[in-house]
Amino acid sequence: MLMKEILKRDRNLRSKMEEEGICAFLIADNINQLYLTNFIGASLLLVPNEGESVLYVPSVNYEDAKENALNCKVTRLEGGRSFISVTAEFVKNSGIENLAFDRLEASQYRILTSKLGDVSLVPKKEIISEMRAVKDEYEIACMRRAAEITKAGFEAAVEAVKPGVTEIEVAAEMEYAMRKEGSHGVAFDTIVASGKRSAFPHGGCRNKKIVKGDLVVLDFGVKFENYMSDITRTLVVGNPTNKQREVYEVVRAAQEEAFKIMRSGIKGCDVDRVARKIIEEAGYGENFVHGLGHGVGLEIHEPPTLNQRNTDPLRNGNVVTDEPGVYIVNFGGVRIEDTVLIREDEAEKLTLSPYIFSV
Amino acid sequence: MLMKEILKRDRNLRSKMEEEGICAFLIADNINQLYLTNFIGASLLLVPNEGESVLYVPSVNYEDAKENALNCKVTRLEGGRSFISVTAEFVKNSGIENLAFDRLEASQYRILTSKLGDVSLVPKKEIISEMRAVKDEYEIACMRRAAEITKAGFEAAVEAVKPGVTEIEVAAEMEYAMRKEGSHGVAFDTIVASGKRSAFPHGGCRNKKIVKGDLVVLDFGVKFENYMSDITRTLVVGNPTNKQREVYEVVRAAQEEAFKIMRSGIKGCDVDRVARKIIEEAGYGENFVHGLGHGVGLEIHEPPTLNQRNTDPLRNGNVVTDEPGVYIVNFGGVRIEDTVLIREDEAEKLTLSPYIFSV
Repeated sequence: MLMKEILKRDRNLRSKMEEEGICAFLIADNINQLYLTNFIGASLLLVPNEGESVLYVPSVNYEDAKENALNCKVTRLEGGRSFISVTAEFVKNSGIENLAFDRLEASQYRILTSKLGDVSLVPKKEIISEMRAVKDEYEIACMRRAAEITKAGFEAAVEAVKPGVTEIEVAAEMEYAMRKEGSHGVAFDTIVASGKRSAFPHGGCRNKKIVKGDLVVLDFGVKFENYMSDITRTLVVGNPTNKQREVYEVVRAAQEEAFKIMRSGIKGCDVDRVARKIIEEAGYGENFVHGLGHGVGLEIHEPPTLNQRNTDPLRNGNVVTDEPGVYIVNFGGVRIEDTVLIREDEAEKLTLSPYIFSV
Repeated sequence: MLMKEILKRDRNLRSKMEEEGICAFLIADNINQLYLTNFIGASLLLVPNEGESVLYVPSVNYEDAKENALNCKVTRLEGGRSFISVTAEFVKNSGIENLAFDRLEASQYRILTSKLGDVSLVPKKEIISEMRAVKDEYEIACMRRAAEITKAGFEAAVEAVKPGVTEIEVAAEMEYAMRKEGSHGVAFDTIVASGKRSAFPHGGCRNKKIVKGDLVVLDFGVKFENYMSDITRTLVVGNPTNKQREVYEVVRAAQEEAFKIMRSGIKGCDVDRVARKIIEEAGYGENFVHGLGHGVGLEIHEPPTLNQRNTDPLRNGNVVTDEPGVYIVNFGGVRIEDTVLIREDEAEKLTLSPYIFSV
């Protein structure tokens, strides 16, 4: 199944290259290489507008690439040879007029520009980003599995969160449960942020004991075949105060109303606005300090973005998060997040954990 | 303790800037920002040659930065404003002649160059890389703790590795044990590569059952306060064959002999040569397909590098891996790795797991 999808991605890329008059594409980004060849340990993928793509792989990963890379010629990059010199030689021998690239560091760009003479070096990372933003059936199957695995993580958290247990101990139980379900590793450092720390959206987890009355933000995900899930639930330890419950219900309503209007064709900013309006009307607009969501796939943050500035319409096959939050210094925070697949006339939650609040 | 070290890093950076005639330093790399301010969620750190450094933080992390960032003025980066426009404005108002930077993407570099007119934009990432390569006492304490935590991971692996258990199940037990010891998260995706897969140095772990006679390469590490450990041990399930034992003993001898000559002043290539010579003389030179080691710290791969090309001498306070390996397609691989602290007249292993082979 994967080979079929890889061939389709290759055709798409070459057709975009033709449309834009690109002679060859230098793909330096490891994740883009993975997307196009099923292999992540290369130094460079060169895609000419005619003929086979060439994957340059350092000795350490050469045998692995020979066995596992798809739809490309695998060439060993001899010790110490940089992909810059390989590219310069390729350009010289091929007589091309321009070379697109997805990502270069400024220092690499400076060197390459000086070596290529009249050949223009054109930044075109958006071509591949836009392809990657629309998931194919193989990718959706992997993301569905990743999302299923995270269910076990939340179940373990509901069991583990209680007074006297540390944030790290909760993360231990969550990650263990997800590994037992087949997780290929965490998608990012698990966040278990309790009490006042829950007011920091990116709080990680610490050797800090949870106490009764704490809000506990749990933000986590796994990889399955390199595809990621991303989910957040917020728990309160014991009976919530009125304000804790109020904030939770506002965030939950914002999340659900935004989900209801998600479908292909609607703009990212319009989805964000639905959630933001609910939070603003409840008086917490200042406390919703981030955009509503982001794309997920081979990376945890990738296009498209759901925020106040993105006027691009969502597309069938996008996978995005829906994650409003309210953060109040010295009180705590509430965030609720699901990973959502965008379809023609509707959207589908891939993450399916219950919206439990009080434990 | 950390504040004292942060102030010292700041003095070092400013003294290097003065030596090199740098007017201001644009620090765009998140890990360099963390090194200089104890905060990782910023967009930009601007260090002028006189006056306080300014950390520009997006709204999502602003309150966190106000509480946790050290030795800098924290400024909120309003929604949608890029660090490029902030930098252009700073340069215009300050009247500086040049601006050093640590890392920019080519597209950012192109935009910034066009906005800065006569002000030269100078790549200087090596200034901070060289500072980071020499660990201070705070950093060494964190890395020592990270290394101690990994001991529990190997103990769990020795218990878990047996016929019928999957690679992922082994990783589950290892990561759980390390979390229980206080791990702040994995340093990288845990590698449990068994059987033929052990011949691939970066094999990850899969839903694949371990069988009797397998070589199993375990390469793993944790973070503690953002500092990483990195260790590899190789197990054989049951009694090793003569060839398995021979390869193991060659790799182990190479690793230990390289360790014995590690100290400040010796060149990276000379340490690599000691290990490589032992492996070559045993007839496996072609199978040692990578350099001997790499620096570790806030990143899992950072300077200095121990390979055939690095002629720079090691320095007191470097932390590097010592990890020879032999990889034979359709047979398997053996790698043994420790994280090592370089001192004046000697070296010290931070990772202290026993060299168990047969389980």
